[in-house]
Amino acid sequence: MSSKKLKERLYIIIFEADTWWGKFFDVALLVLILLSVVTVSLESVKSLNAEYGVLFDTLEWIFTVLFTVEYVLRLYVSSNRTRYAFSFFGIIDLISTLPTYLALIFTGAHSLIVLRSFRLLRVFRIFKLARFIGEASQLRRALKASRPKIIVFITAVSIIVIIMGTLMYIIEGGKNGFTSIPRSVYWAIVTLTTVGYGDIAPVTVLGQGVAALIMIMGYAIIAVPTGIVTAELGMTMSQDKNSTDRICSNCNFADHDNDAKYCKICGEELPED
Amino acid sequence: MSSKKLKERLYIIIFEADTWWGKFFDVALLVLILLSVVTVSLESVKSLNAEYGVLFDTLEWIFTVLFTVEYVLRLYVSSNRTRYAFSFFGIIDLISTLPTYLALIFTGAHSLIVLRSFRLLRVFRIFKLARFIGEASQLRRALKASRPKIIVFITAVSIIVIIMGTLMYIIEGGKNGFTSIPRSVYWAIVTLTTVGYGDIAPVTVLGQGVAALIMIMGYAIIAVPTGIVTAELGMTMSQDKNSTDRICSNCNFADHDNDAKYCKICGEELPED
Amino acid sequence: MSSKKLKERLYIIIFEADTWWGKFFDVALLVLILLSVVTVSLESVKSLNAEYGVLFDTLEWIFTVLFTVEYVLRLYVSSNRTRYAFSFFGIIDLISTLPTYLALIFTGAHSLIVLRSFRLLRVFRIFKLARFIGEASQLRRALKASRPKIIVFITAVSIIVIIMGTLMYIIEGGKNGFTSIPRSVYWAIVTLTTVGYGDIAPVTVLGQGVAALIMIMGYAIIAVPTGIVTAELGMTMSQDKNSTDRICSNCNFADHDNDAKYCKICGEELPED
Amino acid sequence: MSSKKLKERLYIIIFEADTWWGKFFDVALLVLILLSVVTVSLESVKSLNAEYGVLFDTLEWIFTVLFTVEYVLRLYVSSNRTRYAFSFFGIIDLISTLPTYLALIFTGAHSLIVLRSFRLLRVFRIFKLARFIGEASQLRRALKASRPKIIVFITAVSIIVIIMGTLMYIIEGGKNGFTSIPRSVYWAIVTLTTVGYGDIAPVTVLGQGVAALIMIMGYAIIAVPTGIVTAELGMTMSQDKNSTDRICSNCNFADHDNDAKYCKICGEELPED
Repeated sequence: MSSKKLKERLYIIIFEADTWWGKFFDVALLVLILLSVVTVSLESVKSLNAEYGVLFDTLEWIFTVLFTVEYVLRLYVSSNRTRYAFSFFGIIDLISTLPTYLALIFTGAHSLIVLRSFRLLRVFRIFKLARFIGEASQLRRALKASRPKIIVFITAVSIIVIIMGTLMYIIEGGKNGFTSIPRSVYWAIVTLTTVGYGDIAPVTVLGQGVAALIMIMGYAIIAVPTGIVTAELGMTMSQDKNSTDRICSNCNFADHDNDAKYCKICGEELPED
Repeated sequence: MSSKKLKERLYIIIFEADTWWGKFFDVALLVLILLSVVTVSLESVKSLNAEYGVLFDTLEWIFTVLFTVEYVLRLYVSSNRTRYAFSFFGIIDLISTLPTYLALIFTGAHSLIVLRSFRLLRVFRIFKLARFIGEASQLRRALKASRPKIIVFITAVSIIVIIMGTLMYIIEGGKNGFTSIPRSVYWAIVTLTTVGYGDIAPVTVLGQGVAALIMIMGYAIIAVPTGIVTAELGMTMSQDKNSTDRICSNCNFADHDNDAKYCKICGEELPED
Repeated sequence: MSSKKLKERLYIIIFEADTWWGKFFDVALLVLILLSVVTVSLESVKSLNAEYGVLFDTLEWIFTVLFTVEYVLRLYVSSNRTRYAFSFFGIIDLISTLPTYLALIFTGAHSLIVLRSFRLLRVFRIFKLARFIGEASQLRRALKASRPKIIVFITAVSIIVIIMGTLMYIIEGGKNGFTSIPRSVYWAIVTLTTVGYGDIAPVTVLGQGVAALIMIMGYAIIAVPTGIVTAELGMTMSQDKNSTDRICSNCNFADHDNDAKYCKICGEELPED
Repeated sequence: MSSKKLKERLYIIIFEADTWWGKFFDVALLVLILLSVVTVSLESVKSLNAEYGVLFDTLEWIFTVLFTVEYVLRLYVSSNRTRYAFSFFGIIDLISTLPTYLALIFTGAHSLIVLRSFRLLRVFRIFKLARFIGEASQLRRALKASRPKIIVFITAVSIIVIIMGTLMYIIEGGKNGFTSIPRSVYWAIVTLTTVGYGDIAPVTVLGQGVAALIMIMGYAIIAVPTGIVTAELGMTMSQDKNSTDRICSNCNFADHDNDAKYCKICGEELPED
């Protein structure tokens, strides 16, 4: 087999998921990534590390070598190597192999192995079902459309949180956990998002009153991002539902409603759906 | 009375809820199930068990015998016994009777009695009001339609949670409750879902900063499932309300309500649905 | 002034809010109710009660006497006394006066005074702005329309919560706060609704895993009521917006869309909006 | 350069953001405000204040002098000085400079410096992108439209919270943190908004039962503000998208998109918007 043909075949197996081998490769890779993430996680549990430390180290090296081989192969079979190397997945693939090597030199670098979990994003590639792609794309478009509103919202919330946090710092007099403004702002965030750890909680009557106000008002405020995402998602979905794939033969306009019989831009009659 | 006729009558009483006796049987059964679940629950309270242990045991055996008799009866009157035995409710009915018998052999099997609570699902059968069936079906369809989006969403959240958890493990240096990566991931889930127990909470300044980021960003993220369910439910409901595809033969207007008899634009009579 | 005329005048002042005196009476009443609720609340604070106990007692008797006089007056001026006495506000008004008298006989009855806060509902009467009435009616209709779906939802959640609670009781082995099934079910509710007090929290690895599952899945589940209310509210609002007040002169059908030119039921031409 | 021309130039730089210098001024100001807020925050951290106290004091005076100069300049270049002085930003600008001076006289006034964070609102001015203005205006209009519903909702919630809080005070018998009615009401707010600090939590069985009821019911209740904001936002957005009132002269179809030039039903040319 010529080197070129081998390269092509490897490309189809490694980068695509339509053939049996391509699918098998992707699933096997996902299992490896999952196992690798699990290994790193378990390694951090002291009692398990004491007993199975050597096993974990061995597994980690095996995973790292496999991922390194995979990375080199991906680089080898790519027609445009630079593009792959600087693509999102190219960088993730590289980063996934480095920590184990770096840990030989720097202590601590080791934990970065968990960045491998980013590779789990490949899961969407395997599905490769039009349905999932479509759904994910709807979500992505809705979130993208929500972005400016969300930025306005987060800026407003940040200012509220800073002011409320300082107010509580003044009210509680630097006691009861409200020891500094940054800590009080942290408490305000914990409260406004309704997380409510309880590690810091107001004790004075006035403090509890203001806290109650933050919660009730905050609830109305916090309804906003949900409202934004929902409204945008509803729009995206009804657009997807309403727009057919018909293209006007006269002006090439493509975004026609389902019930349209004539192009709304040029008045040309549209083909049947 | 012939055996066949008796069987038919029993079938109507046990499996249907349209006759007076059928309704009485279903309500009585529900009350028994509820009492049985309450008995098991109270039995687990040590102070009550010490005092009323014998009473609880007796009640449990009474319920078990009654449910066993009911199961045998159901099996007897079914025209297609295999189908009932392997249907959802058939399996639930069987499982509900087993734990008490199993507890004679295995200790611990006893607590499984609580699986009887699944039988409470029969409550929907009693209502048997078109309204409730319709509402439940709207909910089910909306949730079903949301499934692919929810899967995409949960996969994304899982990856975020793994990465954030590890980050916090590194930042807090394995202290303040963040003793291992799995525990830190557990903390990240508790935080992102805004549950916030407070059994683990960041103490370092950097840790609190990242936690605040997770909460605020997390709030925008967590708005997504609500948005998905709402948008799908809105669609399902408006489809139910407005589901005809009739087109006016005079003016070609197509957006007619279900109850429309004449075109609201030109007054032309509409075809039957 | 004749007794009948006085009665009529009092009726307008006490029951209506369109005249200056009627409005003044309602606002004064609201302030009294608020003060009364505040007094009862402050009385329950031990340190304040020790110091101002006599003042609080005096105030409470003043409020009670005033409310009693008001109740008797309302009864007196009502044209249909039985209807008022058994109406929602009639019962609330009566209940508001009783606790102070009852407290002379039974200790503890005293705290029931807080039922007076129900009287705050009169606040909506004062507004009496078409806008508020309309908004409240939209909310009420949306919540009413949501009821069957919410019942289906709460039944489903109850069953989930019972099963999950028992599962955690078995997993945590009756330790770490999960001392009985009812307590574990309570924990499951606290977790599923994302309240998360942290008074009970899983400690075992398996328990934390199941808890994490409840939270993530629970989040998708808990999105449902929001979705229901939003979808129903959206429908109610767009109905309000779309439906004009035009009535078909032929068949008296009244629910016409804004863009309707002909009655969709009988085809009759509609009047201009 | 004449004094009048200088004043005009300064006005363009200080109040507008279309020129290079105008933009530079606004960005520099924002950075200063941010730095100032950060300085005040860090100053409240005891360990940092002990070490860098002098630095913080110096920085604060520098910021205050700069902001004072800026305020005087703004006042100087304004054509209508009274209007600026009493405008929202005029007042905020003044308030931002005062605390440092006041702190010379009153201790404690110092912390008010944090009111400077209100000045961060200027961030929206810099963007000055039509997109952000539009988005913020959509949000504002939706929130404004939601106001009457939100007021109805908050009044209802307040009454629920007062009654539930007192109920819990009676049930828990003034123990387990429920030491007074105000504290119990505070607890009810913490629970209903799903914040759940856990500093106060029911211990008795009945108390936990009622708490569970509050949570489940509360969840359905708390879905309402989200529903309100979402529904209003959805309306605002679809109004913005679809705001023409054009009617086709041929078929009377009225639901045309903004970008439509021809009727999508019959192909007739539409009138200009």
